[in-house]
This record gives sequence, structure tokens and C-alpha cells, in this order.
Amino acid sequence: MRVPMTVADFLDRAESGFADSPGVIDEPSQPAAPVAPSTYRRLGERVRAWQAGLDALGVGEGERVAVVSHNSARLLELLFAVPMSGRICVPVNFRLKAEEIEYVVRQSGASVLLVDPEVRDTVADVKVAHRFTLGEQTDTELMRFGVEPRPWSDPDEDATATINYTSGTTARPKGVQLTHRNIWVNGLTFGLHTRAWERDVYLHTLPMFHCNGWGMPFVMAGLGAKQVVLRKVDGTEILRRVDEHGVTLMCGAPAVWNAVLDAATGWAGPVPGRDRVRIVCAGAPPPSRMIQRVEEELGWEFTQIYGLTETSPLLTFNRARPEDDALRGEERARKLSRAGLPALGVKLRVADSGEVMARSNVVLDGYWEKPEETAAVLEDGWFRTGDGGTLDPEDGHLTISDRKKDVIITGGENVSSIEVEDTIFSHPGVAEVAVIGVPDPRWGETIKALVVRADGSAVSEAEIIAYCKERLAGYKAPTTVEFREAIPRTATGKVQKFKLREPYWAGQARRVN
Amino acid sequence: MRVPMTVADFLDRAESGFADSPGVIDEPSQPAAPVAPSTYRRLGERVRAWQAGLDALGVGEGERVAVVSHNSARLLELLFAVPMSGRICVPVNFRLKAEEIEYVVRQSGASVLLVDPEVRDTVADVKVAHRFTLGEQTDTELMRFGVEPRPWSDPDEDATATINYTSGTTARPKGVQLTHRNIWVNGLTFGLHTRAWERDVYLHTLPMFHCNGWGMPFVMAGLGAKQVVLRKVDGTEILRRVDEHGVTLMCGAPAVWNAVLDAATGWAGPVPGRDRVRIVCAGAPPPSRMIQRVEEELGWEFTQIYGLTETSPLLTFNRARPEDDALRGEERARKLSRAGLPALGVKLRVADSGEVMARSNVVLDGYWEKPEETAAVLEDGWFRTGDGGTLDPEDGHLTISDRKKDVIITGGENVSSIEVEDTIFSHPGVAEVAVIGVPDPRWGETIKALVVRADGSAVSEAEIIAYCKERLAGYKAPTTVEFREAIPRTATGKVQKFKLREPYWAGQARRVN
Repeated sequence: MRVPMTVADFLDRAESGFADSPGVIDEPSQPAAPVAPSTYRRLGERVRAWQAGLDALGVGEGERVAVVSHNSARLLELLFAVPMSGRICVPVNFRLKAEEIEYVVRQSGASVLLVDPEVRDTVADVKVAHRFTLGEQTDTELMRFGVEPRPWSDPDEDATATINYTSGTTARPKGVQLTHRNIWVNGLTFGLHTRAWERDVYLHTLPMFHCNGWGMPFVMAGLGAKQVVLRKVDGTEILRRVDEHGVTLMCGAPAVWNAVLDAATGWAGPVPGRDRVRIVCAGAPPPSRMIQRVEEELGWEFTQIYGLTETSPLLTFNRARPEDDALRGEERARKLSRAGLPALGVKLRVADSGEVMARSNVVLDGYWEKPEETAAVLEDGWFRTGDGGTLDPEDGHLTISDRKKDVIITGGENVSSIEVEDTIFSHPGVAEVAVIGVPDPRWGETIKALVVRADGSAVSEAEIIAYCKERLAGYKAPTTVEFREAIPRTATGKVQKFKLREPYWAGQARRVN
Repeated sequence: MRVPMTVADFLDRAESGFADSPGVIDEPSQPAAPVAPSTYRRLGERVRAWQAGLDALGVGEGERVAVVSHNSARLLELLFAVPMSGRICVPVNFRLKAEEIEYVVRQSGASVLLVDPEVRDTVADVKVAHRFTLGEQTDTELMRFGVEPRPWSDPDEDATATINYTSGTTARPKGVQLTHRNIWVNGLTFGLHTRAWERDVYLHTLPMFHCNGWGMPFVMAGLGAKQVVLRKVDGTEILRRVDEHGVTLMCGAPAVWNAVLDAATGWAGPVPGRDRVRIVCAGAPPPSRMIQRVEEELGWEFTQIYGLTETSPLLTFNRARPEDDALRGEERARKLSRAGLPALGVKLRVADSGEVMARSNVVLDGYWEKPEETAAVLEDGWFRTGDGGTLDPEDGHLTISDRKKDVIITGGENVSSIEVEDTIFSHPGVAEVAVIGVPDPRWGETIKALVVRADGSAVSEAEIIAYCKERLAGYKAPTTVEFREAIPRTATGKVQKFKLREPYWAGQARRVN
């Protein structure tokens, strides 16, 4: 028997097996009235109310529903409600500027836009058929409690469930189409390798818009585990929640764990969660010093994954291997800093060029309405990750040595260097620009702009940074600007980023952090 | 991207990530020379040698390869080698009589028959194109080491991987066709719910021919865990291996755990594996007294699953729930004796008739060349389990109230033989029990208990009847008790009620009244 693998499987099991268990604990302090602490029965009711509301609006199957929100119970509900009714959810990075959000809404063709109160003013001018502010407005004007929604007419595991926009190498983000099957397989393998279960308490330290929170909202529901919403990353607040809710599992970029480590030094009494919490780190390769501190100062189990939005994201998983149990300190941290072993069902190979290629059911269906870009990354049944790496012939572990594409990962956020270059270049005082990532102890990488001033221009570092902050999400603005006489190019006029980066990375083992 | 989910995924990960880890430890004392203790690299080499051998024989894709064997490394290898090359593996119960094996070989149309040395004489007259005795003969005459096998031309997740013949209650077994997708999803969900991982040491207490050892040979390989072969169930030997190999995980029918409990009473020193071992019980509903003893006397975690060969087998999983942590003794054991909560991706409902219906990707494709029998169990996207049960509206747990075939109807009242057995088994003087209906001129059927007394017990018929009447409705108490030396069981620990009933129903036109 073949049954479509869909997002519904996760909520179905939560509702049938864990109806009265704690489901989603919303952020207590947020601009929208928080959703009352909720059982999985209540989550199911609210999901159906969203669906009935979309029915009433006349939003058909296959239509896109964009959501711009910080982490919140409502965003989590929508990750179920929209795909389960055969529609497509488009979770949008809440840090984007108005014109960036407008582009995503327009390119995805979304007919509904749901926004967090804090983002409402930013998107005031975005054109869309239906617009609601998450909170009281959606709960009273949109959601239809007690009304049975129209069921998905023909559930299909290959249907697109979500479109998640990435900052790629091009100026414009691309919409990654993840199918129900992508999400299902990612959820199962993520749960399997993290040994997730019903006794876990999951804290959403990761933005849910980012690759659907790596699929954890789905799998933690499917296992009946309690989920605690965290709206904004704050080290002390994370420790407080770990203590208060008995948190056992969290995911996040190295920047998150750095924030926690900082907070722990000022924490009164023993750090909560010792020998109980396990963390999953990704988004940028973690410095081994950080790994060591997490294990020694916090007593939390450190694991790492590697993946991309295009891969749902789980490609590899790294947990201390039995044969490394005797290792301590740097040597142990070094092994844990590798990307890890391919997850079940994932095949990796390294192309002659050094690029890591992946083949798996977690690989995207395609970029939304971008057939050329899709063809460029999907080739003969393999996906080009754009990252350079090596596979250890002894234990099969992947190490990422270089991000081939010009993506800078700062604090877990992907930034397209080209997008930032485009913005800086639009400044009349700039003749040439190259944007690179340079190592940063806190953010992994931080953004540096190398600028050649236009004739007669006296534009300053502060002016360029401010100029970018007006036009881009804050994290995309450079933190430093260096002025040059020229930017070296190849004979064909290409900037060789790796050469520009070289002096800043001297003495570092890798060329990415 | 869609990639076929096949059995190869499990071995691929074992080979790439755990090449030098202990793979399969063969039974040291078996008629065939044991396979040397093996890494997963070696398992992969042997799998390819089997495939190259089948290539050399001219066995094509889709052809059936029957294997009649006790648990052994070779049987485990064949569970990979045959389906991974696009052929179909038919693992056969080694306890079957010659004519039953002949029927399976003929009905499956197997062109190759591989037999354990102990079964060789039994199958001497079975007609088949190619026949080999497992051991030296296969290793030297069939396997082609170092020869690259022909790859499966068109891997397809919906292709049949194995045909497992059910030891049903009917005269002729039926061949359950499990697809690669069935096995893949079963493996993932089984691993997820048992929290299996690379540090597990799995002891094969379950016959591998039975539903492919519930899929554990696949998933344990995929996770890189060590697998220890056990050829024959023996309580003391199980304890010895748990101790020697640091076993953490085992599966088996209640009869297996009864054998272990018996052995533990005579074990010198502390029982090994306390607070380390977890067991998965199925095949027959476990008596609550046994559950209690496993937890208290062995200190092993007790979990239960429910399923059938037709469902790969995982339909439900039962582990102590957080809210039951405070429960002790009988009440706790009673909750653990339920079949459990549907696994991720499994939907259950109870038909008006009381029959449990299942819908999932673990449900069989069909019975091999039995379209009518297939149609009889697959109806409108649901599979008829043939078992009666109820779903707890509070926590979604399934309780099997009766294997349909085992229901006793006495004086118009339906009696669950399981319930009566559970009650009788709770009597300390009882070692084993089977309850059946026998013809009765007044009541149609009346209840008879077949009892094996515990060592040193002199419990009487009257005492057992009185004991039941104190605890059950009067009509559920047996009217007669017969004492036996043993109760015959199938290889999987199931009591074949129809065989026990047979003598009492001789000369009757029907087998129920």
C-alpha cells in the first residue's frame, strides 16, 4: 500500500496520541496576544480554524500564503495549516526590508500575507490580495473556529508544501520548493539521528522561517514532545527557559551557542540542563573552542548537522563516536567540528572540482519559477551544494572546507555578497566594490566591504554602512569597510574572492567559519 | 528530488560510515562454518559476492531466491544481497515440514533454494533449479568474491523486496509481498520509536525469516550498530550474550522473555543489562505479570509493538508514558500490556465490526499471486488486520481485545481468550497457559484452559476456576482445566490455537459453534 507522506502525518499523531499533552507554549511577551499554552488537541483545532478561514477567503489549493513573523505559536500553526490543506506556505525572514519582502510576495505570487505586528508597518505598502496582522486580527477576522475545513482534495507527497527563500549568490533570493516528501523524510531522519522522543522538551532557538525550523516543528509534534517558542535569541533567556521548562533539545547556529556561553558566565548557580540538554549546531561550521566550551562549561551534548535550505536541511549529522569517547579537549572538539556522517538515505560525493554533491529525498524539487537556476543545481540526479569539502575515507565524515558560492554566513544568517555589493555599488560615491566574509570570533564570519571610491568622492565607512542599513536587513550590512585603490580582477574581469579573503584568513585552518 | 527508497540505503550508510565498526557477529556454534566476526565493510563485500554469484547463475531481476535458515550471518547477508540487486528474497520458516517448504518454493516460483545444513535433508526432494547448502558450499561454489555484481537496472521503491509466508491459521500459507518502500518506512519508524542508534548492540533473539526480523537487520545496519546472531532461543544463552557483548536491544515474543525470566532465576550473580537493555515484545499479547517481572526482576525497559507480517510489521508502539511514571506494579504493567500508539505515519480505525483497520506505507503490496486474498484484506485504502480491538479515546492507544480467530463465543457471549489467559497466568502456580473454546451441547462453545504448572506447583483445576471467578465475569471462567507438560508454539512464539482445538472438534462439521 502506498499512502502519501504528508505533513499531516505529524499533526495526526500528535492529536491522536498526545491530545492532552502540552503542545506549544507560546512566547509570553510578544506584540500579538500570545496563544494560550496549548495541548496538541488545541493545536489541531487552531490549525483547522486557519484552514477554514483560508477556505472562507477563497484561497484555493496550490495558492501561496506568505507569513512574515518572528517565532510564534501562530507561525508554527501555519506551517501545518497551510500545507495540510494543499496550499503552499511561504515563511519569510522577518528581518528583510520592505522591498525584499515585496519581491518575495510578488515572485511567489502569494495571495495572502500574514505579518507579525512588529513587521506590519514595514510591509504596509506591499501589494497582496489579502493581508492580516497576526494576533487578534487573525484570531477574530480570519480563523473560523468550529467550522470544518475543506479537506485537501488529492493529497500528494510530491506537492510543494513550502517555499523558503534563500539568499543565494544572486542579488535576488530564490524560492526553494520543498515537497511534503522532502519534509517527511527530513523529519523522520532528523528525529532518528537526534534520538528525539516524546519526553523531549524542544526550545525553538532557531527561526521557524528558516527552512521551517529545520523541520523540528513537524517531527517534535509527531513525537508528542512539548515545544516552547522563543521569539528572539537571548542567552540569558535561553538558560532561563531551559531551567523553567526542563528543555532537552535545541537547534541553532554557532552565534546562538556563543550567546548562551556568554550568558552562562554570568549565571548565578549551576548552569541548567547539565547532562540533560543536547544541542544541534549548524548554519556555519562551529569553532572547536566553542564546542569544547559547550561540553565542558555547560555539560550539554554537542552535535552538528550540515545542510542547506535546498536540502530540508539534513544532509549530515555528527555526534561523538564511540571510538572517540576517550578523546578530550581539542582533539575531541576537532572531530565534532566536522560536518558529519550522511544521514540515512543521503548519498554524498565530492566532484572533481571539490564540490560536495548530494543525492537524497531531502533535496528540493526546484526553485520556484526558476527553471534555469533549478537546472544549474540539479544535474544527473545530484544536487550541487556549492560548498567545497572532503569525505574522510576512514569514517565517511564530511568536512566542509570552502563555500564555493559567495555566501557569507554571519550569525547563522546567509548573506549573498552579491546582493550587498549591488547595494553598495548603487551609492554614487562608489566606483568598485567587493564584499567578503572575514573571520569573527562571535559571528563566525562578519561582512567586510572593499571599496574603490569614485573620482572626487570622499564617502566614509560610516556612510556606507548606514547606506546599507537603510536598504537591507541590518545583518546584511558590512561591519567594516576598507578603501582600496583598485580591486584585482582576472583577465575576464572576474573578482577572485578567495584571493581577497586570503590575508584575513591567514593562520586559520579553514576558509569558512 | 525523488530518490527510490530501497534496502540499499541501510547498507550504504553502514559501509560509508561504519566500515571498520563491528558489523555482524555470527553464531559461533552452528552446523555451517560461521562467518568470521565481521565489520560492515566485510558485510558489504559478502553481499556483493552473493550478488555476483547469482549473476553467474543467471538469476534475473525479479526472480525469487528462497532461503531456509535459522538465524545466521548468511541469512542476514541475503536479506540485503537479494533485494538490493532487484531480486526477491523469500525467507522461509526453518521449522516447516518438507511439503510445506515445497509449497512455498513452488508457489513463489523460486529458482534458487539456499538451505541451512540442518534443514538440508528435509528439503532433499524439493524441486528447484538451483540448490545450495549454506556454508562452505555457498562460500566456495556460489559466492564470487572480488567480482563486481551487475547493478539493479532500475531501482524502484515499489518493487517487491521480500515475500514472507505467513504461518496463518489457514492450511496454506500466503506470501506477503513487502516492497522496498514498506521496508524503508518500517525501518525508519522502528528505529525512531525505539531510539535506536550507533551505540546499540542488537541481539537477534527474533527469527530473521519472520518478517525479516521485523526489519531490524536493515535499520541496525543503517545506524551502524553491532548485530549479534542468536541461532536458537535459550534463556541462559541470551543472558550470557547480553553480558558478553553488552547487548542493549532485543526483540521477541513473550515466550522469549519467559525463557529469559526462567533463566534469570538460576543466574549466578546480578542479571546482566540492568538499566541498559530495552526489549521490544510482540507476536502475542504479553501477560501483565510478565511485564512486571521484566521490569522488576531484570531491570530491563519493556516496550511493546503490535503488527503483522502484512504490516512490515510496525503498526503501534508502547513505551511507558511520562504521565504513568508514578504508576507501579499491576497498574503500570496493565498500561504497558496494551498494543500501543500508532507509529508515525500509521492511521488506525476500528470498524463497526470491531476489527482494527490500518492505513500506512508499511502495509503490504499484496499476497503473491493471490488477487482474491489481496482484495479481501485491502479495501478502500485500508488493511483489515483480522484482529479485534479498541482505541482509547484519551491517549489513542490500541488495545487488541482479540485475535478474531481466537474469540470464544459461549452462550452468545464473546469472550477474549487473551483476557482469560492473562488472568490465569497471573496465578503464581502457572507457568504457561492457552485458552480455547471447545464444543459444548448447551453453550455452543465452552472455555477450556490448557495449563503448564510452574515448577513445584500443585495448583488444581478447581483452584484455577475459582481464581478466575474471583476476577472475571462468571461466563469467562474456564469450565475445564487440563494440565500439560508443554504448550506447542510456532517459531515466533505464537500458540496455534487451531491446532490445540483440533482434537476436541474432531467429527464436528465446523470449528466454531
